[in-house]
Formats: sequence, C-alpha cells, structure tokens
Amino acid sequence: MSDDTRHRPTRSEEDLAEPTYRHGVVALLGVLAYGELVGFLTIAQEAGFAPSSRDKVTLARVATQEFAHYEGLARRIEELDADPHEAMAPFTGAVDDWHRRATPTDWVEALMKVYAGNSIANDFYREMSDLVDPKTRQLMRESLEDSSQVEFAAGELRRAIAADKKLAGRLALWGRRLIGEALSQAQRVAAENDELMGLLVDTGSGYGLDLGDWMQMFTRLTDAHTARMEALGLSA
Amino acid sequence: MSDDTRHRPTRSEEDLAEPTYRHGVVALLGVLAYGELVGFLTIAQEAGFAPSSRDKVTLARVATQEFAHYEGLARRIEELDADPHEAMAPFTGAVDDWHRRATPTDWVEALMKVYAGNSIANDFYREMSDLVDPKTRQLMRESLEDSSQVEFAAGELRRAIAADKKLAGRLALWGRRLIGEALSQAQRVAAENDELMGLLVDTGSGYGLDLGDWMQMFTRLTDAHTARMEALGLSA
Repeated sequence: MSDDTRHRPTRSEEDLAEPTYRHGVVALLGVLAYGELVGFLTIAQEAGFAPSSRDKVTLARVATQEFAHYEGLARRIEELDADPHEAMAPFTGAVDDWHRRATPTDWVEALMKVYAGNSIANDFYREMSDLVDPKTRQLMRESLEDSSQVEFAAGELRRAIAADKKLAGRLALWGRRLIGEALSQAQRVAAENDELMGLLVDTGSGYGLDLGDWMQMFTRLTDAHTARMEALGLSA
Repeated sequence: MSDDTRHRPTRSEEDLAEPTYRHGVVALLGVLAYGELVGFLTIAQEAGFAPSSRDKVTLARVATQEFAHYEGLARRIEELDADPHEAMAPFTGAVDDWHRRATPTDWVEALMKVYAGNSIANDFYREMSDLVDPKTRQLMRESLEDSSQVEFAAGELRRAIAADKKLAGRLALWGRRLIGEALSQAQRVAAENDELMGLLVDTGSGYGLDLGDWMQMFTRLTDAHTARMEALGLSA
C-alpha cells in the first residue's frame, strides 16, 4: 500500500447507513463470495489431477477452507440486509470466465493455479480491505488464505521443475496467462459495476483510491506475481 | 437388518487387540474413507452442472460434509495405528471405477447420483456398522449423511420430472446403472480383499454375516433403492 493511500480517510461502521457505501460493500462482498464459491468448486475439481490420495486430501482441505470463507462472506452480506445470491449475480460471468480461461490441463498447472492464482487473490483482498469499515475489513482479512497451501504448491512445483527442466518454459507461460487473465477480469468487473467502482475508486465520495492509486495497485499485484515466479526460478 | 443377523455376537473394544479384527476394521475404514474423499471431489465437480449459485452452495455444503466424514474416518484409522493412505490404497481402483462408470452428464443425473448413490452408501454404512466395535460403529453412524441433501435432490428431481415427462425414462435407466455399478463394485471390493471379507463375512471367526446374510443384505439394498425410485414415480 502506498503512503498516499494510507493517509486517505477510512470508512467506519456508521458509513454503512449510507446507501451508496453499503451497496458498494455488498457488491465487493458479492464478487469475493462468488470467487470463493467457484474457487472451492474448481480446486475440488483440480484435485482430480492429484496423483495420490495424500495430494487429494491436501487440495480438498484448501477447497473446504474456501467454502468456509464463502459462508462468512455470505453471512456478512445478509447482515447488511442483502441477499448473497443477488449480490453475486452481477459477477458470475467474469468469475466463471476467469476459471474457463485458466483451466489447468494437468497436475502441475493445477498446482501453479493454487500457487499463483490464490496469491493474487490474497493480495487483492488485502488491498481492498483498506477501503472498507473495520468489521468488513476484519472478515476480509480472515478470508486471506493461510499460506500453508501456497507453500505446499510451491514445494511440489519446485520438485517437479527440478525433475523435468522442460517444465520451466511451459509453467512460465502458464503463469503469465494466469496473471493476465486475473488482472483483466478484475478490471472488467470493476469497470462494469458502478457500485463497486464507486467504492474502490474515488469519484467524488472522498474515499477510495484515485485512478493513479488504482493503477499502482495493479502494478503492485503484478510485481508480487513476478517475485513469486522468480522464487520458482521461472521468468515472469 | 434381519432378525438372524441381529442375534449374532457383536464386537467389543477389546477385540481391537486381535490383529485380524483390527486389520479388518482398518480395511473397512479405508474403503469408507476413500469413498468419502472421492465423494467430496466428485460432488464438488458435479456442482459445476448446477444452474444457479444457490444450487452450487447446496452441493458445496454436501461436499464439505463428506470431507468432514473423511477426516473423522482418517483419524480413527490413525488411532488404530495405521496410515490412512495405506489403508485406502487397496480400494482406490474400485472406487475410482465406480465414479468413472457413474459420471453424470448433466444436472438431473448429478442430482440422481446424490439421491440414489448417497442413499445406497448410507444404507451400506448402516448395515456394516453392526459388525464393528461400539466406537467404530458410533463414528460410522455419524458419517451417515443427514437426510437434507437427499431431500433436496428428491425435490429438485420431482420438479424436473414434472416439467419434462421424457426425463422419467432416462432417469430410470440412469438409476438402474447407479445401483448396478454400486453393488458390483461393493462385491468386487469385498471379494478382492481378504481382510475386509474376513470382517464382514464369517469364515470361521464366529463374527460377521454368513454368506446367506451377505446376499440378503444386497437384496435389502436393492429393495430400498427400488422404493426410492418409485417414490419419484420412476420404474426401478
């Protein structure tokens, strides 16, 4: 988070009385909730590639954590007097598209999706959590994945790359595709949804990022992705 | 359970000191654990067919329950000084085959697999739980699915059949395939595994079913399936 952003005014619980802010939060929680729900479904699906029952169990645990996050986000949406399914509806197309465009074809690609994809999502969560009231922020931070699954995926990937040098090129390409699709869908989601855009970007409310901050955030997400790819010895 | 079976001697905690019995229980828990693990994975996969986010959430909840059962069974295997993954290994082929042969091609077939498939598994659990010591029995009974998901699937199926009469024929066929594959894989699993067979069928231990009881149990499973299909207005 840049210094500039850190000094922007932050939202309080009382702001939830303001319909524009509340609708923005519901929209943000809606996209995150649908992301967790479909994340659950796709990780469980990708566990089908897992070569052993041990790996299946590891991925199944990751998936059930995502579903627990979904349930927490859905409860918060209800607390804000909205329906989780209505809140998710505007975002199902973009999230489904991201998974369709980023469908792994084997176990190492599935691992990379856990490693790179979940990390990008975590970084995005953390950035966005600065823009909301404390209770919503707390919930969003709890939804940050614990790092054990990312470490598991990184360890497996390192082993796979060491055993088969040709993998590095393919995985570097696949990582580039994952970040590209993630950022393009994230920008599409925000651009298409006025309530969400109004929350995240300051278009007169005095809160949120200015457009420069917004673009800088995407730069930070990309830089963090590059560092993660390099940590595997891959060109980003 | 037939009266005859009910009067057979039952196992106690102390019997776990006997290696043959303990290995039999570990084998039974192994096949059940792998069944829950893959049940988790396939239900999550089949939720991909769900037409709405509401239905996806319902199936995701079913799936996470299965994983919680897996975790309970795996813990019990460890309590019995065995490794869950080694315990599951002899059964992965048969369980994977059952899912491969019973892969739904759309949402109504996925619902039928929940309705018919999980009910058969529940009935089988209940029958087998009579053959083990009280603590293992208690765990197996806790692993019986709560009926809400079966009712959900039955309700959706009734609605779908009412809306499209042609579905009845296709679903009746599909139901027949599910029970046929389930029973044939169950018999194959028991026949191929001496430890499991020794637990379930009395081949000199004085415990377990005699071969007549064993066949009667399959008849009961089939009858219950027929009744469930008829409850949907389908020929079984």
